[in-house]
Amino acid sequence: MGNISLQLIRELSNTTPSKIVLLVIDGMGGLPDISSGKTELEAANIPNMDGLAAMSICGLSDPVSPGITAGSAPGHLALFGYDPVTYHIGRGVLEAMGIDYPLQSGDIAARGNFCTIDKNGFITDRRAGRISTEQSSQLCDLLNNMNIDGVSLYALPVKDHRMALVIRGDNLNHNITDSDPQKTGVTPLKVKANSPEAERTASIINKFLERARDILASHNPANMLLLRGFDEKPKFPTVSEIYKLKPAAIASYPMYRGLARAVGMEVLETGPAIEDEMSTLKKSYDSYDFFFIHIKETDAQGEDGNFEAKVKVLEHVDRILPEITGLNPDVIIVAGDHSTPAMIKGHSWHSVPVLIYSKWCRPDNVRQFTESACIYGGLGRISATDIMPLAMANALKLNKYGA
Amino acid sequence: MGNISLQLIRELSNTTPSKIVLLVIDGMGGLPDISSGKTELEAANIPNMDGLAAMSICGLSDPVSPGITAGSAPGHLALFGYDPVTYHIGRGVLEAMGIDYPLQSGDIAARGNFCTIDKNGFITDRRAGRISTEQSSQLCDLLNNMNIDGVSLYALPVKDHRMALVIRGDNLNHNITDSDPQKTGVTPLKVKANSPEAERTASIINKFLERARDILASHNPANMLLLRGFDEKPKFPTVSEIYKLKPAAIASYPMYRGLARAVGMEVLETGPAIEDEMSTLKKSYDSYDFFFIHIKETDAQGEDGNFEAKVKVLEHVDRILPEITGLNPDVIIVAGDHSTPAMIKGHSWHSVPVLIYSKWCRPDNVRQFTESACIYGGLGRISATDIMPLAMANALKLNKYGA
Repeated sequence: MGNISLQLIRELSNTTPSKIVLLVIDGMGGLPDISSGKTELEAANIPNMDGLAAMSICGLSDPVSPGITAGSAPGHLALFGYDPVTYHIGRGVLEAMGIDYPLQSGDIAARGNFCTIDKNGFITDRRAGRISTEQSSQLCDLLNNMNIDGVSLYALPVKDHRMALVIRGDNLNHNITDSDPQKTGVTPLKVKANSPEAERTASIINKFLERARDILASHNPANMLLLRGFDEKPKFPTVSEIYKLKPAAIASYPMYRGLARAVGMEVLETGPAIEDEMSTLKKSYDSYDFFFIHIKETDAQGEDGNFEAKVKVLEHVDRILPEITGLNPDVIIVAGDHSTPAMIKGHSWHSVPVLIYSKWCRPDNVRQFTESACIYGGLGRISATDIMPLAMANALKLNKYGA
Repeated sequence: MGNISLQLIRELSNTTPSKIVLLVIDGMGGLPDISSGKTELEAANIPNMDGLAAMSICGLSDPVSPGITAGSAPGHLALFGYDPVTYHIGRGVLEAMGIDYPLQSGDIAARGNFCTIDKNGFITDRRAGRISTEQSSQLCDLLNNMNIDGVSLYALPVKDHRMALVIRGDNLNHNITDSDPQKTGVTPLKVKANSPEAERTASIINKFLERARDILASHNPANMLLLRGFDEKPKFPTVSEIYKLKPAAIASYPMYRGLARAVGMEVLETGPAIEDEMSTLKKSYDSYDFFFIHIKETDAQGEDGNFEAKVKVLEHVDRILPEITGLNPDVIIVAGDHSTPAMIKGHSWHSVPVLIYSKWCRPDNVRQFTESACIYGGLGRISATDIMPLAMANALKLNKYGA
């Protein structure tokens, strides 16, 4: 990884009229299909991406470090230039951020699942038969706005059986264990403080869970709640503070909207389709100088092990690429937050192709935007955290370091 | 960057008869010319460098970190193996180094401008009408060699209205504010201590500035002096301490002589031409085991945006290269401190070609010493700070780490 700190980047950054577009194709990197011997990118017909690669400097990026499989949060934080080992966001906080909930400084958040317990209190279904978001909303209404020992608790529906709990008050501490045992046939756990300072928070959560059991008792199959991933809203320097950018995020999935918000991006309203995201980009293009555009479907198809469907999504993204290049941004980056090979049906550690296009990029000889071609790119194998400094440099937004 | 510290290199280094020559071609890396599509190195006819590259291991180096444009000081410190973020040289010290002034340990240095003030003491011209270096020298003579409270002050002409002030004595502290308000229409500022330990130094500087005003009063337009960037001569471990080398620097430009002196190299007398530097090398070849040779003109032509002239300098360097190879050093490194593309007319962030020749280098397939060819080199894309450890290893001067 580059050895430059965000503090130094902050000292060197300055605002100019140039614009940067960061297109993140979630889980882009892949592995060869056994029959064809080609990865998803190699199998896809992506003439626009290949053409852009030919005018760009290319390489392979490691989201965290070689061999480390990145989750969505570290994968994206790295692409935004934040060392994902130093800058950590807990899952509870991500869940709350992902539903556009305005977390305040000091808030604690946890992820929750409505679940089913039997007469003896043993968990029989951790997902309560995957009840609908609508049902989940009604149950959250029953649990919402409690006040326990002077602390406010907010129950927020997320999707299907998933919810988030936000705890707001003085002297809270997130260093407590989960109530979710992550298996059936056992009772939900009491949460425990991992340090003396967290005793009070643990006690409040246990009281909340007792009340929740009483309230939910008659709402079978969603007659209980499991909580995990307690965390405090992190205090990160924002993209505006570090890079002096006016950043906008175009993402339809809540998690990525939350991640963008965590680093201070303005999250634009957009629809679920790639075309919706392109409309949003065009409509807002004059108002910002940095755009993070997130494409989710590649990752979803990779997770499902659907090689062909992932190829189709890549081809779909390729067809809309001219809508981005047509705006003539000064810098275009096409990157992935991690690999999600259909062969693995999940995130993987494999390095991810990346291209950086600008008038000043010093193009290499890479002519195809694939894993095997990007090996020979001028960027070599870089840390994903180096991508933003390179983008800033190519946008001529970084001053010289030292005399 | 590699994850080895100078401390570890120090523990592993040992003295042997082998010799290392580090040829630094300042601002060597470039960008393609629009009409030819070739960079300066690609356009140049450099058969000797190409031939050496064919026998060497090649790669691309990042002076500070990907995307970061290095100034001359961090660019050179990195080539000498010092992390340029950890090892910092202040502007005042660089200014004094830049005129070849032999700073001593504990010396404080500041940059100065002669300026014009009106009857009421308000600054009307921060540059005193850009008086000549000759006028500046005469004024410095008037201010030079003062002794205030047991401390010696040296006023040194730099160029035009620019000068440097060196303060030498016991218990000095550089943590004081500037007297230069960096604008006109106000009076010069009194310097202030930022910490109690700097009170005495601040008081001495204010006394000096009062005396300077009296002395300069009749020398309109240069009737006052502004100081900024107070800094102490850094205490770096020397090249001899770290690498156990007996190092010599062959550089004609003051700044690079100063940088070499800052890391404890012996700076040899030499003339301004590349041929002069070669004579110096030959004359002193038996007396040292490490030579830093600095070529300035590539950078100067790049800064001027003169693509053809930069190509010509590269070809000139190529013609003298046999004078280096003819001495049969055990290790030859050809590197740059940063890129200075004529297209950008300034330093840039682009990675810089590097070659390391030795009997033990394990040559790659690179046959041309260019940006595009070095992408495929066996070194890959490395931090410039890794070059010295590689040179030491190739000179068989580094012991095994661990059992």
